[in-house]
This record gives sequence, structure tokens and C-alpha cells, in this order.
Amino acid sequence: MSAQDITAVELSKAYRLLNHGPTVLVSAQHEQDADVMAAAWACALELTPAKVTVVLDKSTKTRQLVEQSGYFALQVPCYAQIDMVHQLGTISKFDQPTKLADCKTELFYQDPYPVPLVTGSLAWLICKVIPEPHNQQAHDLFIGSVVAAWADSRVFRDGHWHFQNAAKELRSLHYIAGGTFYLIGDEVKAR
Amino acid sequence: MSAQDITAVELSKAYRLLNHGPTVLVSAQHEQDADVMAAAWACALELTPAKVTVVLDKSTKTRQLVEQSGYFALQVPCYAQIDMVHQLGTISKFDQPTKLADCKTELFYQDPYPVPLVTGSLAWLICKVIPEPHNQQAHDLFIGSVVAAWADSRVFRDGHWHFQNAAKELRSLHYIAGGTFYLIGDEVKAR
Repeated sequence: MSAQDITAVELSKAYRLLNHGPTVLVSAQHEQDADVMAAAWACALELTPAKVTVVLDKSTKTRQLVEQSGYFALQVPCYAQIDMVHQLGTISKFDQPTKLADCKTELFYQDPYPVPLVTGSLAWLICKVIPEPHNQQAHDLFIGSVVAAWADSRVFRDGHWHFQNAAKELRSLHYIAGGTFYLIGDEVKAR
Repeated sequence: MSAQDITAVELSKAYRLLNHGPTVLVSAQHEQDADVMAAAWACALELTPAKVTVVLDKSTKTRQLVEQSGYFALQVPCYAQIDMVHQLGTISKFDQPTKLADCKTELFYQDPYPVPLVTGSLAWLICKVIPEPHNQQAHDLFIGSVVAAWADSRVFRDGHWHFQNAAKELRSLHYIAGGTFYLIGDEVKAR
């Protein structure tokens, strides 16, 4: 992690990591089996205690690992990772067991959580599933309580994103469809 | 609506209006009483049939109107509307009954739906509430089935956003906190 400066984010500010609507990577692990998928449908749900929602299709290996372990991580990827993000959202580990190696996805861990995190992302939120069987079955909707959060202080510090003066490679990604994303753009302020 | 070219969006493509994570305006009306609020926590939930989630705090007048009417609209505002968006997210109609006039919010309607839409936005999704009392009470989370959608064809046409060549005033807004937003930025493609 030499190039990154990973700094803890107060849980009361964790919603700000997702508030601008980035596409996320969802990671999970059960025993020695880890997977990561891309998801555009993740959202803050509550400020305090910090909670999030994420939609996880029944066809995904990541969902199986979330159900087995009771934990997932959301991470905010950046332009430098665009090809990996798209591959992680296209390939299923059920079809391609070497998915993570094939996508060149490197994982790390933050003590004491046995939840895999993706190296090179801008921010990471470790979430404990709040079991909601109806939402999970009927809507593929998972609710998580944020138990820890970190960000790369090059782009998020003092509770705020600082994209304005960061390299283009560190801009967050906002997926549309068919491999097309938008980067987050300029900071603007209301009067 | 002279300056806008409002074009219907296929429901199967409606998720793309929200996929890049814009801050939205949520509008609702019961009898002659209408309100509009800003919300950063809205998200697509399902492709077909198109569904969305939105978090509506119990303190908001808009939520009361959604509960009374069973409908809401999500709209994607743009930089030209930034001050209005911030005011709509700050002022409560419970405290300030003239909120919409004070915020200079103009409404229009698309037949046959009695759901108010905000003039000057980039896209509009009319949603019918799928009643989920537990989600609404415990999480302030509302699920809506998208029954109609439109977009301003200057920026969304043929199922895709076209921000790249649009005026800065037509960029979508992505809220962080304290009156600070980001504009959506450049289009990029994965390999």
C-alpha cells in the first residue's frame, strides 16, 4: 500500500463517501473464498448509525459470500481502475474461478476484519449485514451497518472529497451501461 | 416548456437516468398540496420492471404527500438549478408554506399523471409506491415502480446521457454536504 495513505473516516461522515453516487466494488469472503463485483446500485441509508443499501443479484458469487459471512465491503474505485471495474462487473466467479487473478485485483485486510478490500480504491466501508430476509429475497436488497471506513487521504480528508486538485486517475467512476462511465467532475457550491 | 425538449424514455432504460448517482428532486402532490425536496439517497433497484428506492425522512412534508397520494416523482436537476436544489433540501414546507414560490420552483404535469414535475430538470421518473410498511417505518426507505419517464433530449437521447457536448449548466449535480456539490464530468470507456 506504499502509494496510498489510508486514513480512518469517522462513521458519522461515512455517508459522504457514497453521497455523490459513485459506482462501487462490493467484496466479501467466506473462509478462504473471496470475490469482488462492481455495482452501480449502492446508496447511503442512514447517517447515524451509518447504514447503506446495495443490490446484489442472486446470480452472483459475491452475494453467496455475503450471505455466508454476514459481512461485505463497499469501496469507491477510480479511473485508474476502470478496466478492472468493468471486468469485475462482467465476469462471474462461478464461471471463472480465477476471476480475481484474471482481473488483476489485489486484496488487503484491515485488522480485525476478515473482509477483503481492493487495493488502489479511493475509500472502503466495511459493513455488517442487517438481516432482512424479505428485502433480500424480493428485491435483492441488502442493508448493511457500517462498522469501519477508511479513505485515501489524497482525495478524501477532513470529511470532504478533494477531487478538484487530484489527478484524473483518482476521479470516481459513475457507470451508465455498455462499458461507458462518467468521471466525477468539478466542485461547485450553492449560494 | 419552450426551451426543453421532453422526450419519453423507455421504462427498460429508465435506470440509466439514475445510474450515475445524481442528487434528485423528489416531488409529490395530494389534492392541491404539492412539495418538492432534494435527496441524495435515491437509487435504481430493478431493471424490469423498473423500480427505484428513495429515502424520505419522517420530518418532510414531501413524505406525507407521498404517503397520502401513493405516488412520487424523481427528477434529475442540473447546475442551472443548484441554488434551488439546495434551498429545496434545506427549507421545510411545514415551516414555510410558501416554500415552492420562495424557491422559484415551477411545476408542470404530464397527462394523465397528477404528479408535479419540476421545470428545467434533465429527467423525470413518475413512480407508484410499492407499499412496504416495515421499510418505510424502520428505514425511511420507499420503493417505487417507475410508471413513466422522460428526459430532456438535449442531454439524454437514444438511451444514453450526452453530457460531453452539453453546456455546463446542463450537468447533473452530485451532493456531498454543506452546500457543496460535484458536477458530473467527462465520459470515459472501459476497454
